[in-house]
Amino acid sequence: MTEAKKNIRIVVAYDGSRYHGWQRQPRALSIQAVLEEAIHRITREPSTLIASGRTDAGVHALHQVCHFFTRSSISPESIRRGLNSLTPEDIHIKEAGYAPLNFHAQYSARSKTYEYRILNRPDPDPFLRFYVWHIPVRLDLREMERCLELIRGVNDFSAFRSSGGSPGDPIRNMIRAELHPPRGGIISLVFEANGFLRHMVRNIVGTLVDAGKGRIDRKEFKRIMASRDRRQAGIKAPPQGLYLKMVHYDVT
Amino acid sequence: MTEAKKNIRIVVAYDGSRYHGWQRQPRALSIQAVLEEAIHRITREPSTLIASGRTDAGVHALHQVCHFFTRSSISPESIRRGLNSLTPEDIHIKEAGYAPLNFHAQYSARSKTYEYRILNRPDPDPFLRFYVWHIPVRLDLREMERCLELIRGVNDFSAFRSSGGSPGDPIRNMIRAELHPPRGGIISLVFEANGFLRHMVRNIVGTLVDAGKGRIDRKEFKRIMASRDRRQAGIKAPPQGLYLKMVHYDVT
Repeated sequence: MTEAKKNIRIVVAYDGSRYHGWQRQPRALSIQAVLEEAIHRITREPSTLIASGRTDAGVHALHQVCHFFTRSSISPESIRRGLNSLTPEDIHIKEAGYAPLNFHAQYSARSKTYEYRILNRPDPDPFLRFYVWHIPVRLDLREMERCLELIRGVNDFSAFRSSGGSPGDPIRNMIRAELHPPRGGIISLVFEANGFLRHMVRNIVGTLVDAGKGRIDRKEFKRIMASRDRRQAGIKAPPQGLYLKMVHYDVT
Repeated sequence: MTEAKKNIRIVVAYDGSRYHGWQRQPRALSIQAVLEEAIHRITREPSTLIASGRTDAGVHALHQVCHFFTRSSISPESIRRGLNSLTPEDIHIKEAGYAPLNFHAQYSARSKTYEYRILNRPDPDPFLRFYVWHIPVRLDLREMERCLELIRGVNDFSAFRSSGGSPGDPIRNMIRAELHPPRGGIISLVFEANGFLRHMVRNIVGTLVDAGKGRIDRKEFKRIMASRDRRQAGIKAPPQGLYLKMVHYDVT
């Protein structure tokens, strides 16, 4: 007797430092490949693991949501334990459960939250070299806040889209864009949107840092956004400060 | 004209994960060797760098104090900058300055403080795999506190000394032995003593964790200490939770 098809939803945290990003690719270590191989060993079936979205090389996840289909009768809790014993310590499966068959980790997502962490103090921290962007000069947080106001709401984010991403609609709804005051020298920038263009958070952060350094002001930030021209915006912030923090669904 | 000999005191923080400990040794990466080679390049003289004490493989330092002699006329601030540009990102030179010629990083130290970090929650944290000891079962912190009381003051710590260390007086004055309540699931144990025997902190922590798990009680802990027999004590806690936190001098 063949078991019925089930949709398994898993929540994963990972330290992206060692990986060439989420997506499976030839001759490079990816989080997707590591997880798919472990799932194969547990369920004895090959499966494709779909995530809410890809993360780039060096980018981390505190709460990445994924799903895969299986006919195996192994319980989600056994899958969770099995995956945790088969995957390296820089990947941790936080949750596993049954989802409705029509649940899709990417297409069912209502919004996603990213966090970007900047260490803003003269000295670097040897323990945070893979986990923050170190900026030694003091940033003007008020000016950065004033720029953040401009990106809230429905906007055309073309100026912050890197080439190489899928083309199409550059309009996104930025639901939250917050700067949290430094704790232990770490400034946390939190962005929630109904979707993100390629490298959008890192390009926004790079431009915000230009404002924090006094290279541009709010008016110039506004002009950059309105230009819809990636070449006008600042550098792309490095990957190690970026965390996929949450994926939001109407129904899980 | 030959420059006068100077004693340079440096303060270093390092992530010990990649290193086979502080001490220079053949065919293994050590913090001492990396720093001595960088000092050699800057001062153009070979120097021996003396630390307050060795740290073992995988053990970290938040504030390791070292010194070396040089006849170079380069300023301490230039030495600090030069070392920071020549050493990898997991080593950071926090301070450099002139010390009296009779200052000795090890022998002038009055006491040292170590911290041990335990992540006490069911789930591991992929970001802390090199930085804490993960203990999934809930520890009885009160019983651990009660055992900590026993090690404060002047005691014979033979039961917590690993073999292979230098023999000699096992009496030490434990000035501070504190358990800080969990923050983010991390329990911090802080030990200040006028000196530490080989693996003493890790052996104490392993035995304290036995008390936290209910395997032994305060009475048994007391008996273990009094036995002066290493085989009576618990396992040696793993290195990645241990940090050299401070070295205390009467004069710097």
